[in-house]
Amino acid sequence: MTLAADTNIVTEQLADGLERVERAFEAQLSSTFPAVDTLCRHAERYRGKMLRPTLLLLSGMGTSTGVPAFTEKHVIAAATVEMIHMATLVHDDVLDEASMRRGGATVNFLRGNETAVILGDYLISNAFHLCSRVGDPALNLRLGEVTNALCEGELVQLSRRHDLALDRATYLEIVRRKTAVLVGACCEIGAKLSGASPSVTSACYSIGEKLGIAFQIQDDLLDLTGNEETVGKSIGRDLEKGKLTLPTILSLERESGAARVAVLRAIEARDGDSLKALLLSSGAVESARDFARDIVQKARLELTSLHQPQVRAIFDSLADQVVDRAR
Amino acid sequence: MTLAADTNIVTEQLADGLERVERAFEAQLSSTFPAVDTLCRHAERYRGKMLRPTLLLLSGMGTSTGVPAFTEKHVIAAATVEMIHMATLVHDDVLDEASMRRGGATVNFLRGNETAVILGDYLISNAFHLCSRVGDPALNLRLGEVTNALCEGELVQLSRRHDLALDRATYLEIVRRKTAVLVGACCEIGAKLSGASPSVTSACYSIGEKLGIAFQIQDDLLDLTGNEETVGKSIGRDLEKGKLTLPTILSLERESGAARVAVLRAIEARDGDSLKALLLSSGAVESARDFARDIVQKARLELTSLHQPQVRAIFDSLADQVVDRAR
Repeated sequence: MTLAADTNIVTEQLADGLERVERAFEAQLSSTFPAVDTLCRHAERYRGKMLRPTLLLLSGMGTSTGVPAFTEKHVIAAATVEMIHMATLVHDDVLDEASMRRGGATVNFLRGNETAVILGDYLISNAFHLCSRVGDPALNLRLGEVTNALCEGELVQLSRRHDLALDRATYLEIVRRKTAVLVGACCEIGAKLSGASPSVTSACYSIGEKLGIAFQIQDDLLDLTGNEETVGKSIGRDLEKGKLTLPTILSLERESGAARVAVLRAIEARDGDSLKALLLSSGAVESARDFARDIVQKARLELTSLHQPQVRAIFDSLADQVVDRAR
Repeated sequence: MTLAADTNIVTEQLADGLERVERAFEAQLSSTFPAVDTLCRHAERYRGKMLRPTLLLLSGMGTSTGVPAFTEKHVIAAATVEMIHMATLVHDDVLDEASMRRGGATVNFLRGNETAVILGDYLISNAFHLCSRVGDPALNLRLGEVTNALCEGELVQLSRRHDLALDRATYLEIVRRKTAVLVGACCEIGAKLSGASPSVTSACYSIGEKLGIAFQIQDDLLDLTGNEETVGKSIGRDLEKGKLTLPTILSLERESGAARVAVLRAIEARDGDSLKALLLSSGAVESARDFARDIVQKARLELTSLHQPQVRAIFDSLADQVVDRAR
C-alpha cells in the first residue's frame, strides 16, 4: 500500500474514533433531571474542532506497536479532555462576558452567570468522573496536575489584567498553563496509553505543548483582528477585559515615542479598531503570527517520535491549521 | 478503662487527625505564583467547623478493627472532601452575591466574581488531584459521583428559583444532592477505608446523608432567622435569590386565605423581616426545626453500625449540634 492509501485508512479510523468520543461524551452527560439535561445538550453545541481528542487519538495511533490503533481507554480519555476543555469555555465566557460561541448564544447570555458557573462545575466534575472509569490512578493524577496548571494560568492572567507592564515571558507562561499544558497532555496521554516509552511520551507532550502555545497565540490574534461572524464567537474581549496579548506586547517592546503612546492610548480607551490598525500597520500582528509559526515549525521537527509515517503525515497537516485558520 | 476515658483518647486522636488534615490541605494548595498563593491563604480562612473531615475520620475510627484508628488515606480523603466543600462555598458566594463568610469578606466581594469563579475551579481541581494521590480508582469514581450529584442539586435549585410551587419532596431532593450526598459519602468513605463490610459502609452513608439533610435545613433556618454577626456570613440570601426553604414550604402547604396571601406577599416583596415574623408566629419555623430533629433522631438509631462505643458517643453528641447551633 502507498502512504496515501495508508493515510486514508488512518483518517477513517480517526473519524470513527471521534464518533466514539462523542458518544462517550453524551452518555456521560445525560441527567435524569430535564433542567440539567437541557443545559448539557446546550453545552454540547460548543463542541467544535475537537482538537484535543483528535491529538490524543492521533498520538495514540502514531506511537502504537503494529498497525496504528487506539483502545477504549483512549476514547474515554479523549472524551475527558474535551469535557475539561468545554468546562473552561463555559467559565471563560462568564469571565469574558461573552454572548456568542460557535455562532450561538453562550450559556451565561441565555441563562445567566449563576447557571453557567454551576454548569461549568458540572462539566469538570463529570470529566473527573469519566476519567476515573478508566481505573488508572496515574491518569487521574496527571489530569489533576493539568487542570491545576490550567486554573493557575487563568488566575495569574486575572491578576495581571490591565497591567501594561506584562512582558512576553509572563504572557507565554500564562498561555502555556492555561492552554498548552492540556494540549501537551493530550499527546502525552495518547502515547502513554499506547505503551510508548517515557522518552517518546515526553516528546509527544512537547509537540502538543508547542502546538498549544501556537494555537492560543492564533486565538488571541483572531480576538484582535478576526471577524465575529467568521470566528463564530464574541471578539475584542481581550482588550475589553484588559488582557494584553502577543502583538500588543511585541509592539510595546519595540515602539517608542508617539507610536508607543498611540498604542497605549488605544488600549486605555479600549478602542479596538485603532489598536488593530496600529498593530497591523506596525507589523506587530505579522510578528506575532511569525512567532506562532516558528513554534509550530519546532513542533514539526519532533514529529519523528511518532513512528507511524501515515499518522505523522496527518499530524503534519494538522500543525499548519493551528496557525492558518480564520476561526 | 471507663467509656469516658476511652472517649477522651478518641477525642485527642480526632484532634490530631484534623491537624494532619489541615497540613495536607495547606500542602496541596501551595502555589509558586504569589498571586495564586495569596488567594489560597484567603480561601483557607473559610475553614470552619470541619464537619466533613470530622465525620470521615470518626466513621473510620468507629468501624476500624481493634482499637479506633485511621490511616494516612483517611487523612488525604478528609482533606479532599473539605476542599470540595470549600470550592462549593466559593462558588455559592458568587451565586448568592454574598459579601461575608466566617466573619470576613468573601473572595467575590474582595476580588470580583471572575477571580472567585476560577479560584473555585482551582479548589475543585486540587481536590481531585489530592484524592488521586491515594491511588484508589474506586475513591476517585465515588467522589466524581458525589460532585456530579452536588452540581445537579445546585442546577435543579437554580432552575426552580422564584418558583412558589416548589414542593417539599423537591426541596428535600435538592438538599439531599447539594449537601447530604457529600456528607453521606464522608461517613461511607471513612468506613470503607477502614475495611468495613458493604452493609456497615452503606449504613454509615445513610447516617451521614440524614445528618447532611438536617444540617442544610438548619443552615436554611439560620439564613431566615439568624443574626448576621452570630452566623458570621451574609444572611437573607435565600429570600433575595428566590430560594424557597422548608419553613416557607411548610407554611404554604398549611395556610390558606389571608395568612397564605401574607406569606406570598412577603416573599414577592423580598421582605425578610415580615416573612420571618409570619413563619415564626405560625409555627412553621418550629415545624421545620422539628422535621430536622426527627431526621437526626433517625440517624442516631443507625449509630449501632459504629461498633466502637467511644466513637459512637462522640458521634451522638455531634448529631445534636447539627440542629442545635446558632452558626
